[in-house]
Amino acid sequence: MAITPKPTVGFVGLGAMGFGMATHLVNQGYTVKGFDTWAPALERFKVTGGTVAASLEDSAKGCMYYVCMVASAPQVQAVLFDDARPIVNALPHEAILILCSTVPASYAQSVRDQLVSRGRGDISFIDAPVSGGAIRAANGTLSIMAGGSDPALKRGESLLAEMSDTAKLYLVPGGVGAGSNMKMVHQVLAGIHILAASEAMGFAARLGLNAQDVCKAIIASAAWSWMHENRSPRMLKEDYFPGVSALTIILKDVTIITKSARIKHFPVPLSSAAEQIYVAGLSRGFGPDDDAGMVRMYYSEPITKVASSATRTPESKSRATNLVISLLRNIHLCAATEAVAFARFLGLDMTQFYELVNPAAGGSFIFKSRAMEMIDGIGQTGVSTGRTLNEAIDELSAVVQEARNIDCPMYLGAAALGMMHQAEYRGWGKGPDSSVVRLWEMHHGDSSSST
Amino acid sequence: MAITPKPTVGFVGLGAMGFGMATHLVNQGYTVKGFDTWAPALERFKVTGGTVAASLEDSAKGCMYYVCMVASAPQVQAVLFDDARPIVNALPHEAILILCSTVPASYAQSVRDQLVSRGRGDISFIDAPVSGGAIRAANGTLSIMAGGSDPALKRGESLLAEMSDTAKLYLVPGGVGAGSNMKMVHQVLAGIHILAASEAMGFAARLGLNAQDVCKAIIASAAWSWMHENRSPRMLKEDYFPGVSALTIILKDVTIITKSARIKHFPVPLSSAAEQIYVAGLSRGFGPDDDAGMVRMYYSEPITKVASSATRTPESKSRATNLVISLLRNIHLCAATEAVAFARFLGLDMTQFYELVNPAAGGSFIFKSRAMEMIDGIGQTGVSTGRTLNEAIDELSAVVQEARNIDCPMYLGAAALGMMHQAEYRGWGKGPDSSVVRLWEMHHGDSSSST
Repeated sequence: MAITPKPTVGFVGLGAMGFGMATHLVNQGYTVKGFDTWAPALERFKVTGGTVAASLEDSAKGCMYYVCMVASAPQVQAVLFDDARPIVNALPHEAILILCSTVPASYAQSVRDQLVSRGRGDISFIDAPVSGGAIRAANGTLSIMAGGSDPALKRGESLLAEMSDTAKLYLVPGGVGAGSNMKMVHQVLAGIHILAASEAMGFAARLGLNAQDVCKAIIASAAWSWMHENRSPRMLKEDYFPGVSALTIILKDVTIITKSARIKHFPVPLSSAAEQIYVAGLSRGFGPDDDAGMVRMYYSEPITKVASSATRTPESKSRATNLVISLLRNIHLCAATEAVAFARFLGLDMTQFYELVNPAAGGSFIFKSRAMEMIDGIGQTGVSTGRTLNEAIDELSAVVQEARNIDCPMYLGAAALGMMHQAEYRGWGKGPDSSVVRLWEMHHGDSSSST
Repeated sequence: MAITPKPTVGFVGLGAMGFGMATHLVNQGYTVKGFDTWAPALERFKVTGGTVAASLEDSAKGCMYYVCMVASAPQVQAVLFDDARPIVNALPHEAILILCSTVPASYAQSVRDQLVSRGRGDISFIDAPVSGGAIRAANGTLSIMAGGSDPALKRGESLLAEMSDTAKLYLVPGGVGAGSNMKMVHQVLAGIHILAASEAMGFAARLGLNAQDVCKAIIASAAWSWMHENRSPRMLKEDYFPGVSALTIILKDVTIITKSARIKHFPVPLSSAAEQIYVAGLSRGFGPDDDAGMVRMYYSEPITKVASSATRTPESKSRATNLVISLLRNIHLCAATEAVAFARFLGLDMTQFYELVNPAAGGSFIFKSRAMEMIDGIGQTGVSTGRTLNEAIDELSAVVQEARNIDCPMYLGAAALGMMHQAEYRGWGKGPDSSVVRLWEMHHGDSSSST
């Protein structure tokens, strides 16, 4: 049986993620022609067996497959179209172009349109943002959310499969932009959960709780989130430098969410509140630091120094720990409603969304256990599992009040409580707490004022 | 004609406000027996002609009129009831007790109940919070919002009139607590407008605008508020110390609002967002400073240093100034909806509320020009003056986006936009922008989930 030689892949953007992805392809036997504007990245790529392209144009010439992994939409625009010798001019006929950068869906769609208007409608274009971090990039076990025409996805699937975990390659229905939209709604959860972890740990410190103990309790409880488990070790080590996941990166993703939501006039109250606090963190100079360092917005001393001064009785400690757990599970609940409503609004496949989030960075105990009823319940009465909304409000009210008593800022907790109060005000207080998702039921206003 | 001698007045709490009020009564010919736990205040009071009481008990003995002006509800509770020789035990039969401290209405009502349960139902009790600042206190031209039984108000009115401007003594219908509720809804406006002034001036600084110029433009425009005009001179002088109006004072008032709203499950999204940012200011150490110093949460350098580096063209400057004005008028619009809805919810006389706010510290151009249609329009279609909600959303969206472009936090602007988006989502986008007030229409949920 003849072995088909693996194709040559063009690749631009050899940063932390791109370098891992490109190197992994090299290790899998692909010839990878890599390019980056930062010379040391090229040197490093050469050492690992990569082929260094002399220019953008050179990285694309003769490559039937091309992966773009630069940092932002403006950079994508530059390398694909606006460079003096851009990638699109150099790609061979019927090439497969895979855009792995995280960009707004509207931008991914504009790439498709620009390809057509420049006479390169022959190119199969896929928007395929990834998630999972640099280590999984290097192992070829990323989560990938890919959108494109059916023929394009079929042609690109084998290369996408090389870069992703078998179970985590999601071909998202809906054409070009669907991959970006799916990543965006996943990032609604990620963006809120990252700040929630800081809000919870800062609150715990102000309550005089031992940081290690409260972390263990959170991870073992209904307050668990992938982000909390992932970020809290850095908080416990006070290891915010230089930033495994820089604040600027999650802020970029949250800004894609809020900007897209603004354009569509879609309310994203928690993402919007989180964005402002991230921006305030930027003002404090925390931008290049790890996003786990946002805990400093809530507690200015290292949280691990609290243990020595803690004087709580076991009962009081247990009560305080439960406040922190309540804070997180209620934020996660409201985050789930925001993400589910946005995904539904964007027309995404909700079952796929649910399956994609659970093992991914946006996962939480609450999402796993409650999101399905939100998905089923939008516009419906909702099912009656779990607490009532009134019970959730009482629980979160006590948390917000306690934070105020000890002068601890509580941005997300207060915003989540506001969402719950709005839902109660609509008459859903005796319904399940997941009724918050009904805030996004559309256009129940009377026609006299809307026409 | 015989001249009736003026009665003796007992007085506790000779702080900035109380000292002015008590001294003014002395100047008007009253014998005022003053008490305070801070000895220098007593010394100073003696110098101005006041009668220094030897104790709390002494300050009340034989005084048919008593004014309590201590700082907070716990202090009121201590001096009236919990002291070893409390005021209530010493007051003569059928005395008139006027509580001028700012406290929650529920606490004022508990004072009435405690009087009855201690067998002092003979005392005429009035809750009469004031506003206007130390200078107006000393001039006897405060605004006073007084609640109580009709006979109590009748008996207390002459003394209240001595301390207030003739046109600014509001006898608020609704019994004990109504005065406190009226002050509380006024403070919804004050609390939001104070932070809005900082948010606007910080944004202006980040836009590279000259602080003096932008202030003048704001004050001459639809973005005018009493608070902006009052606080901005301190921003222009960077004079935040020691605090004419300390951050801790407005924070105390906002906390009364959010706590009362939480107890009543009433959503106050802007007050809640403002509270968290005030608490963050407290964490930064700004508590004792003037609240105008909150501008430092948005721009870390003195805003007056911007002028020298500004390089905007006149057109660009005009465009940027308009963004700042848009920010304020839209925050003020949403603040007005929150205050109007809360006042309505509390059963206050809406015409009196409107008349009281306009010349007071909560006043704004937007409130004056738009609040009446909000008052008329609750639960109605709304009248069609002014912009549509969709137009307001487009305007504020552009502001929030520009703030994000230049990494300026915009807490209130983002929260106000969220309120507008929620209202648009309810189907009111083509209605007047004041339709935001309809967010507080009650219980439009289906009965199947609320029973």
